[in-house]
Amino acid sequence: VAPDVPSALGHPDVQAVLIASATITHAAYISLAARAGKPILCEKPIDLDLARVRKCRADLAEHPVPVQIGFNRRFDPGHAAIRKAVQSGEIGRLEKLIITSRDPCEPPVDYLRASGGLFRDMMIHDFDMTRFILGEEVVELTAMGSAAPGTAAASIGDLHTAMVTMKSTSGVLCHINCSRHASYGYDQRIEAFGPEGMLISNNVTATNLERYGNDVTSAREPLLHFFIERYQASYQAELRSFIRSVKEGVPPSPSFEDGERALAMADAALESLQTRAMVPLCT
Amino acid sequence: VAPDVPSALGHPDVQAVLIASATITHAAYISLAARAGKPILCEKPIDLDLARVRKCRADLAEHPVPVQIGFNRRFDPGHAAIRKAVQSGEIGRLEKLIITSRDPCEPPVDYLRASGGLFRDMMIHDFDMTRFILGEEVVELTAMGSAAPGTAAASIGDLHTAMVTMKSTSGVLCHINCSRHASYGYDQRIEAFGPEGMLISNNVTATNLERYGNDVTSAREPLLHFFIERYQASYQAELRSFIRSVKEGVPPSPSFEDGERALAMADAALESLQTRAMVPLCT
Amino acid sequence: VAPDVPSALGHPDVQAVLIASATITHAAYISLAARAGKPILCEKPIDLDLARVRKCRADLAEHPVPVQIGFNRRFDPGHAAIRKAVQSGEIGRLEKLIITSRDPCEPPVDYLRASGGLFRDMMIHDFDMTRFILGEEVVELTAMGSAAPGTAAASIGDLHTAMVTMKSTSGVLCHINCSRHASYGYDQRIEAFGPEGMLISNNVTATNLERYGNDVTSAREPLLHFFIERYQASYQAELRSFIRSVKEGVPPSPSFEDGERALAMADAALESLQTRAMVPLCT
Amino acid sequence: VAPDVPSALGHPDVQAVLIASATITHAAYISLAARAGKPILCEKPIDLDLARVRKCRADLAEHPVPVQIGFNRRFDPGHAAIRKAVQSGEIGRLEKLIITSRDPCEPPVDYLRASGGLFRDMMIHDFDMTRFILGEEVVELTAMGSAAPGTAAASIGDLHTAMVTMKSTSGVLCHINCSRHASYGYDQRIEAFGPEGMLISNNVTATNLERYGNDVTSAREPLLHFFIERYQASYQAELRSFIRSVKEGVPPSPSFEDGERALAMADAALESLQTRAMVPLCT
Repeated sequence: VAPDVPSALGHPDVQAVLIASATITHAAYISLAARAGKPILCEKPIDLDLARVRKCRADLAEHPVPVQIGFNRRFDPGHAAIRKAVQSGEIGRLEKLIITSRDPCEPPVDYLRASGGLFRDMMIHDFDMTRFILGEEVVELTAMGSAAPGTAAASIGDLHTAMVTMKSTSGVLCHINCSRHASYGYDQRIEAFGPEGMLISNNVTATNLERYGNDVTSAREPLLHFFIERYQASYQAELRSFIRSVKEGVPPSPSFEDGERALAMADAALESLQTRAMVPLCT
Repeated sequence: VAPDVPSALGHPDVQAVLIASATITHAAYISLAARAGKPILCEKPIDLDLARVRKCRADLAEHPVPVQIGFNRRFDPGHAAIRKAVQSGEIGRLEKLIITSRDPCEPPVDYLRASGGLFRDMMIHDFDMTRFILGEEVVELTAMGSAAPGTAAASIGDLHTAMVTMKSTSGVLCHINCSRHASYGYDQRIEAFGPEGMLISNNVTATNLERYGNDVTSAREPLLHFFIERYQASYQAELRSFIRSVKEGVPPSPSFEDGERALAMADAALESLQTRAMVPLCT
Repeated sequence: VAPDVPSALGHPDVQAVLIASATITHAAYISLAARAGKPILCEKPIDLDLARVRKCRADLAEHPVPVQIGFNRRFDPGHAAIRKAVQSGEIGRLEKLIITSRDPCEPPVDYLRASGGLFRDMMIHDFDMTRFILGEEVVELTAMGSAAPGTAAASIGDLHTAMVTMKSTSGVLCHINCSRHASYGYDQRIEAFGPEGMLISNNVTATNLERYGNDVTSAREPLLHFFIERYQASYQAELRSFIRSVKEGVPPSPSFEDGERALAMADAALESLQTRAMVPLCT
Repeated sequence: VAPDVPSALGHPDVQAVLIASATITHAAYISLAARAGKPILCEKPIDLDLARVRKCRADLAEHPVPVQIGFNRRFDPGHAAIRKAVQSGEIGRLEKLIITSRDPCEPPVDYLRASGGLFRDMMIHDFDMTRFILGEEVVELTAMGSAAPGTAAASIGDLHTAMVTMKSTSGVLCHINCSRHASYGYDQRIEAFGPEGMLISNNVTATNLERYGNDVTSAREPLLHFFIERYQASYQAELRSFIRSVKEGVPPSPSFEDGERALAMADAALESLQTRAMVPLCT
């Protein structure tokens, strides 16, 4: 933590604190901002260590302030529309949820080393999205993963690609498949299935230009490159939502608990990978 | 006409006559088959000369037999579904019809020389499709066209590409755009527009395979190459329809008059191209 | 013109003038701003009367200032991508251009009365788009139109729907089809065709959500409602472009001449509608 | 087995035997036809009991004849194109395979009772498809499933919906998700992912008609209803392939072993469901 932060946080002009620093500093800054009585918008993950997250939660219990965790994808118009349609019963009682989540290219090995691994760094977004759309908890999961030789992930014993399958309290089957790379761009899709139909929040392109070329194929525009482009609108909506929550005095969402639960799911996935067994989750 | 045809046509085992020979022979074979009292399925066009078509019609008046003209596209499932939806009022009173019709590549110059030109050889299908979907006649039209230097069409004074705009009895605006080539395959689309909506009969591909490649684009399968592939089902349905008509004793469709009217539209388009004016059509 | 405008325009704090008032006032404000030496961004159309537009141009010749006309659609990412691809030769020498342009619903009759008619009020955007993508002038055009009984347009002798076909200097065939209504939303599509392929700038939806419902159909999201939603990004880019032009001292685009030429095309379309003949255009 | 079958099978006019009777009779007919020395095309599954399948294999070892198992989906043009593209290296070394397989509606409870359960009756197709596209064996799998209250499946302790996740010899992650119902039609999709791209064999509709309606949505045609419609071409290709194999004296495919292995995978899935653990497979 930077030495001048504590006093700066206490300044009366500071109405709220946005934490977008390195993950390792999140919990400390949350505790400091809470002690200063300031509402907090903190980037995900809260921390890579569930014990430290729980200690941070204890701090917040003593110094309660509104806390929002930066699961920006909840604010994506397409994903939010799926959640809304599912919760309104448009497809009946949800039966299945399938999330595809692939980054365009593997980050550098230094980033990976500090990342906490694929489950905590990347799939944590999808664990949160699962809970967001379900509107209930996951009770058990199994995980599989691999890293092709020659990938940075393989060189440090991390995963390059993974599949997790889950069951929720009410019996919904959920599947997440993640990859650290996708040669065709940032692949972000969600499919919800129920007795009355199916909803797909599909990928997004920069324009709706279609090209029918000389080689007799028709091509749509490439997918947007990465999260900066794909989730631009969601970052803006996330911030607006936080500001509105603080101004109107209503609890912000996603909450600290949402951040904690997503991390617990990542830990369970890692455990399943190691034990090759189904892992139950507290609900 | 081959010398042994007349007697062969009279053979009692011949139940019907299919005329798929060179265009120049169609009218003569129609007259022969009519004199022999046989139902006829004749490839389009009836003839390139409207006067000869009318003479053939006079022959048929003397020797009435069922005649179906080979406008196979009326039997395409997508195009037929547009016609049905329009006629059933699904989009309200039709306001606009837009037909796109592009062959994959220019035929040899010898074919073009005998073809009667783009309007009579190629756009005649689209003139028929216009009348089929409208369910009424076209009252006037204007045409524009061109042939890029270096095309076979240019070398013989024919058109390589053309646009025709028409108005129907009840005021529907119609547009056909035709090209002798399309680098991406056989392009056959129909769009109908009315106060209650729009219908598009879109292009067809061999499979629904999608490819998301290394160059970050997503490509759908190529369009089917040409009419043999694209209209395979329609040729089969055309023949089944003719056989059923003959068996059940109901008049086949499209009729001889349909063939005559489409040719009259082609002639009007040619006249408009030469006079640079709107050309009225008898209805 | 409001009485306090002239002096206000002269104020040194005024760096540029944006004219978004009623069409009837555009020309007068342009002249005033030009006399005050201020760069101008003026909404389309410059005026409904070509004579007055030319008089305004004479004023600008005496008091030259940068002028940009508000053809915002040139800044739409999809349409701009078509122009760029066409101009870069991606589909070879352009052969055909087809523009579909339909508003979601007819404006009130009072708006229509003052609008100058469908060609000058609505299709003027598409005339500009034609020139923008062609990169050259149109040399002749023919027009057809109609207004269904019961429409506001019919009640005042205006058009409700229209088709215009054009030829450019180098022989490109162009087609615009416009409607004052579309039950399914704002329909804005552009198709460019050449020997090496086809490009389509397709409609835009709010999200990429797909719905597969109980009635066994799959539905994509509705089209965006109207120009405010559909061309939001283009309005923003238009303004940024104007500001950059003024700052960098480069001539803004689209220019005053672009505004004048689009109006001349609208007048020619009206003439063709009345004379039922091909109308040549000065180039 | 019908009493007159054995002698009929021996008749010299019988060149090959097609077994499309109830599953319970498959193994017996295979053995009979093998003893009669006739090539066999047998519907899947060979039997619901792996022990009986192995006994049948022993019979075939004694009386070797060509045997093809009716995994018709291998002959679907889209699915076959995926297999071909994967095997040719179009997307690099395969990393993931995701199969979606949903029937339009649950069969009657009597059918379910005799079916062997969702894994052996329905997902067996997808297990075969997995091996077909992989071109190698699956080494381990985990399964989850459920049956919503009120379904026929629930009433007899079968599954209504299930997810299976697998890993192959070379480390490819595979996922199958199956449902006994889909309100929007027969949902059959395959997605293959590798370092050089992604391939999707998407659903098929009867025509490419698009409807843009009054309620401002755009709808594509419904999915084909069920396997009879969706896999019509594959059934025809399957039969042609069998006949060609027999005529040319080459081993037919998919083979008896393919049928056995798919059943072993179904059994493993059932075991995983019961033990809640990863189940290894012999390769």
